[in-house]
Amino acid sequence: MAKRNIYLETIPVEEAVDRAKAALDRISLLATETVPTHLAAGRVTAGPIYARCSSPTFHAAAMDGIAVRAEATFAAREDQPVSLSHGTGFVFVNTGNPLPEGMNAVIMIENVVQKDDITALIDAPAFPWQHVRRIGEDIVATELLISQFRQLMPCDIGALLSAGIYEVQVRERVRAVFLPTGDEVLDFKDRPEPQAGQVIESNSQVFMAYAASWGIDASYTPPVPDHEETLRQAVLDGLAAGNHAVIVGAGSSAGSKDYSKRVFESLGRVLVHGISVMPGKPTLVAVTDERSGHPGRLLVGAPGYPVSAVVCHEKILAPVLSWLMGATPPERATAEVVLARKTPSKPGMREALRLAAGRINERIVAAPLARGAGMITTMTRAQAVTYIPEESEGVDEGETITAELLVPLADLDRVLVHVGSHDNTIDLLANELMGLAEPLRLVSSHAGSMGGLNALKAGSALFAGAHLFDPETADFNFPFIARYLKGLDVTVVNLAIRHQGLIVARGNPLSILGVEDLAREDVLFINRQRGAGTRILLDHHLKTADISPRVVRGYDNEEFTHMAVAVNVLTGAASCGLGIFAAAKALDLDFVPLARERYDLVIPTAHMEDPRIVTLLATIRKEAVKTAINALGGYETDLTGQIMRPGMGLG
Amino acid sequence: MAKRNIYLETIPVEEAVDRAKAALDRISLLATETVPTHLAAGRVTAGPIYARCSSPTFHAAAMDGIAVRAEATFAAREDQPVSLSHGTGFVFVNTGNPLPEGMNAVIMIENVVQKDDITALIDAPAFPWQHVRRIGEDIVATELLISQFRQLMPCDIGALLSAGIYEVQVRERVRAVFLPTGDEVLDFKDRPEPQAGQVIESNSQVFMAYAASWGIDASYTPPVPDHEETLRQAVLDGLAAGNHAVIVGAGSSAGSKDYSKRVFESLGRVLVHGISVMPGKPTLVAVTDERSGHPGRLLVGAPGYPVSAVVCHEKILAPVLSWLMGATPPERATAEVVLARKTPSKPGMREALRLAAGRINERIVAAPLARGAGMITTMTRAQAVTYIPEESEGVDEGETITAELLVPLADLDRVLVHVGSHDNTIDLLANELMGLAEPLRLVSSHAGSMGGLNALKAGSALFAGAHLFDPETADFNFPFIARYLKGLDVTVVNLAIRHQGLIVARGNPLSILGVEDLAREDVLFINRQRGAGTRILLDHHLKTADISPRVVRGYDNEEFTHMAVAVNVLTGAASCGLGIFAAAKALDLDFVPLARERYDLVIPTAHMEDPRIVTLLATIRKEAVKTAINALGGYETDLTGQIMRPGMGLG
Repeated sequence: MAKRNIYLETIPVEEAVDRAKAALDRISLLATETVPTHLAAGRVTAGPIYARCSSPTFHAAAMDGIAVRAEATFAAREDQPVSLSHGTGFVFVNTGNPLPEGMNAVIMIENVVQKDDITALIDAPAFPWQHVRRIGEDIVATELLISQFRQLMPCDIGALLSAGIYEVQVRERVRAVFLPTGDEVLDFKDRPEPQAGQVIESNSQVFMAYAASWGIDASYTPPVPDHEETLRQAVLDGLAAGNHAVIVGAGSSAGSKDYSKRVFESLGRVLVHGISVMPGKPTLVAVTDERSGHPGRLLVGAPGYPVSAVVCHEKILAPVLSWLMGATPPERATAEVVLARKTPSKPGMREALRLAAGRINERIVAAPLARGAGMITTMTRAQAVTYIPEESEGVDEGETITAELLVPLADLDRVLVHVGSHDNTIDLLANELMGLAEPLRLVSSHAGSMGGLNALKAGSALFAGAHLFDPETADFNFPFIARYLKGLDVTVVNLAIRHQGLIVARGNPLSILGVEDLAREDVLFINRQRGAGTRILLDHHLKTADISPRVVRGYDNEEFTHMAVAVNVLTGAASCGLGIFAAAKALDLDFVPLARERYDLVIPTAHMEDPRIVTLLATIRKEAVKTAINALGGYETDLTGQIMRPGMGLG
Repeated sequence: MAKRNIYLETIPVEEAVDRAKAALDRISLLATETVPTHLAAGRVTAGPIYARCSSPTFHAAAMDGIAVRAEATFAAREDQPVSLSHGTGFVFVNTGNPLPEGMNAVIMIENVVQKDDITALIDAPAFPWQHVRRIGEDIVATELLISQFRQLMPCDIGALLSAGIYEVQVRERVRAVFLPTGDEVLDFKDRPEPQAGQVIESNSQVFMAYAASWGIDASYTPPVPDHEETLRQAVLDGLAAGNHAVIVGAGSSAGSKDYSKRVFESLGRVLVHGISVMPGKPTLVAVTDERSGHPGRLLVGAPGYPVSAVVCHEKILAPVLSWLMGATPPERATAEVVLARKTPSKPGMREALRLAAGRINERIVAAPLARGAGMITTMTRAQAVTYIPEESEGVDEGETITAELLVPLADLDRVLVHVGSHDNTIDLLANELMGLAEPLRLVSSHAGSMGGLNALKAGSALFAGAHLFDPETADFNFPFIARYLKGLDVTVVNLAIRHQGLIVARGNPLSILGVEDLAREDVLFINRQRGAGTRILLDHHLKTADISPRVVRGYDNEEFTHMAVAVNVLTGAASCGLGIFAAAKALDLDFVPLARERYDLVIPTAHMEDPRIVTLLATIRKEAVKTAINALGGYETDLTGQIMRPGMGLG
């Protein structure tokens, strides 16, 4: 059996960071270099910087007006103005002009009455040094201007140049290289078409984008194959190239092909194997010793799952590499948010929960997104991330938690929080709303139609997308609203009529043309799970066609999503299944329309005046949007934008 | 008389931004371009992006372990394990491996008992699709992945590459050029030595550093002279070079050489002349028309004072240029802070107040820094900025206000808030503390010795620097502590003994050797203001030497700072004045030591266990620090780091 690593222990990220800092000597690791001041923003000073010149270097007018000798104005009163002559008594000055010899005050031009070309009248005394910037007011030559280990901000550059400092000694940038690994990963530079068992390498580029925001000098290599000696050589090459840190992507876990730990152990001392946060757990941290040829450098094994890697970047690499350089690690603004759905969490592990968040009335409501470590799109769709603490067993619905914001706080006022059934028309709307001069961000938590109604009831969604068919009344959504949203006044607006149909193999080799064909002996069906709207629709159509479920081969084989149904068809595990057009299109399968259903937006009537909802509805009603929905295929827009009433069915 | 501009009205920054947005057509102004996905972080999408591939493209193991057919494990119980054979019953998989044909679940390796090389025992049933990432779990081919007008974040790059998107259509970067103006400004690239009436141009580089943080494509020119036609041509050149925005530095005010407004009026429509915020008021915003040859572009007149320019950058340029590109303007985290000193403010104008801020007990205390628009060092020294609203007449001491943070919130826990007399040894300490492995930031509000004691009383400083001499007792600080800090237990630690002396012209041409020489007829003295510690010291020495102030020529001529005294000597307005060595050194003047005084740190005893104070005192007591203080000149370190007692005087 292949040899596997085991985790010795997992430790909190803070302790992992502390161990790395304690094992690294940041003073000797990074050299210093001289750079022109005007190119030094973001760099960290290597030593204290003292002002060379004062600023101003002279007494300067601080206002546009006239320079005077204050004592000559002391007698001035409103009813007894003092008259001054140009040249001897006053001189015109603009802001920044040096104060003429003998003058010690400036009177603003607005407060000067010009009697004639050479005479000015002053009706109030000026006090000495009024509106004058005196020499050294801002900067005194020789004084400490900037301390050591300061990351230079834009205004620092201004202060340094003003003080006549034209070049500065700064610490080197931290150099770090990212080595993606894995036999199954394809170099994105080859623009590959991935086959089963292959994935496109992207973690290196997420790292590169993060690294740019940290201000480090980052690089990456093509994927390194799963071979211990090859990986060791790649790490040695990274060190030999002068990198202060080598980050190995994937291979830090406990699989039989995870060589990072053994490689790190052969080149130095492993400080951390496993951090108590999910995603992110299989993070390795080590420091090199003499065996590497370059002792005292940092080695990090970043997990392979994209969200795990992100947690490793944000919680381990950002603080450690920033500290190495002497820079301030980036910090996210936080906000108190109300969790929209009960979320259990494993005690003993901190958990990064991605959140779709937006303001609803006075609260910021946050709906948890999917939790898989492999789902990078949960990061692209999230507005916030919260960390459920180690000691917690989870967070209750309605509980207030602190979340790190991925977007500016003000943006949350311009978010439309949608909870409900996912549909591509919602994505289309989201794209449309981002194109407005003042964009609105439509964010979705995919909780199904019933989940959406529940969210409305809990006040944790601005609106819900639903396509609930009631066979009793042959109506959509209203019977369910009447049952589950008692006491909540809602307005229902149709977004589109959606086609469900039989997803069949390309070219429809079995010529499946309708629900009748499901009774055929050569047709193997794949069903959706009990309770799914699509299954209710199927049962309705079988009943109408007078076909017993028992004669449908495969009726008891269940899948949970449209895509999974389509995959069964793609792989030949089934001849057909019921699903939406988009699922067939995604896998390039054929589609036989079977049933039409209404996909409606259910909006609490109290929100109908909310400017975001007003904009949403105006957008839905645009002709261009209807055209775009029709272009998707599998939709009709006859009812789009119209307010629905109970009993309307399909209009 | 020279022609001057007048402000028509000042408007709030929000309205100025809205006017600019309303006058610009961002869709037509910026073209789109194609860039490789891996270089697109920070760019803004020009249109929606749909997934090309699904991710994963196959059912994949989500854990390291064995792949099984779930149905084969349903009977497994702890006391009745199910035995599976390698190959047909199970297959080893690592995370990411495709699920073998016929398998539909993964069991984690930790939960597998390996009976022998080919047999695995399972003691709990696996459910179908357990630990399996199913095809399209993250990304479904054809679905909307990223909407239009999205600024791509690091994780977006990962999502795009994972979906097989290797290049993206993005909006051009905004191009903006900064034209510094002014006959008196020197091009920093010439590494000039400024003379009276000259300043080193630096605003262009502060703009460049800001622009880098906005992600725009920025450039700048050498200073443009104060000449209307030359400025017009420079603006036209900036437009012809393809810039979407031309920013003219300085020249936007109402001085006779402020040509920006007239130039902008000749090339387009002025939208804003004057914003109701200080610093920053003389900001101009215009949009070009056909006369410029490039209609629909943005012209901004940024004020010349450095802090005014910063306010213009942050409050006008950042939001408008970000909006043009479709990006999110940078947003600062905010915090509630307690103001340490009453600060009146002019109603009708918002005022940007720079703050030295740090945590003291449970509060973040913020001491206002100097308010001059010309003082760029107030920005380098600040940890926070608050905006006093237009309708306010100021903020009271102890009032809680919201401030924008210039440093991460966590850094405020590592700030030592010092209020009191300024001294170069405090700067030296500040530099030393930044060099620690976990740096401490010593921030100072220069409020004088008495101001420092008041701050301790109000609980708004961690410690205070004081050098208060009491002629009655010939003791330092304690008599004042007894009088003004009744009931507050403080510990007094000496930082250094400081020399005050006579600042005289270089070479000491009048051979001024002591206080006796102040009675000479050929010596013209410059005094400090009534109440200044230095003046009290002078009076004491005059009295001791039995010299009447009446015989000291210039005794009634007052200055307010050591530097101002030194400037009088430098310019020949006085032959000598009393001040510290550093002031003489800054202007390269000679110094005749006259008096020694104790510069002490007054620390509330309750803070003595605070880790920051512990570190501060440990640092003061380092030999290297004493050596560095001595190297400054003008100091003695015999008492440095020692706890002072009443009546000790100079030891």
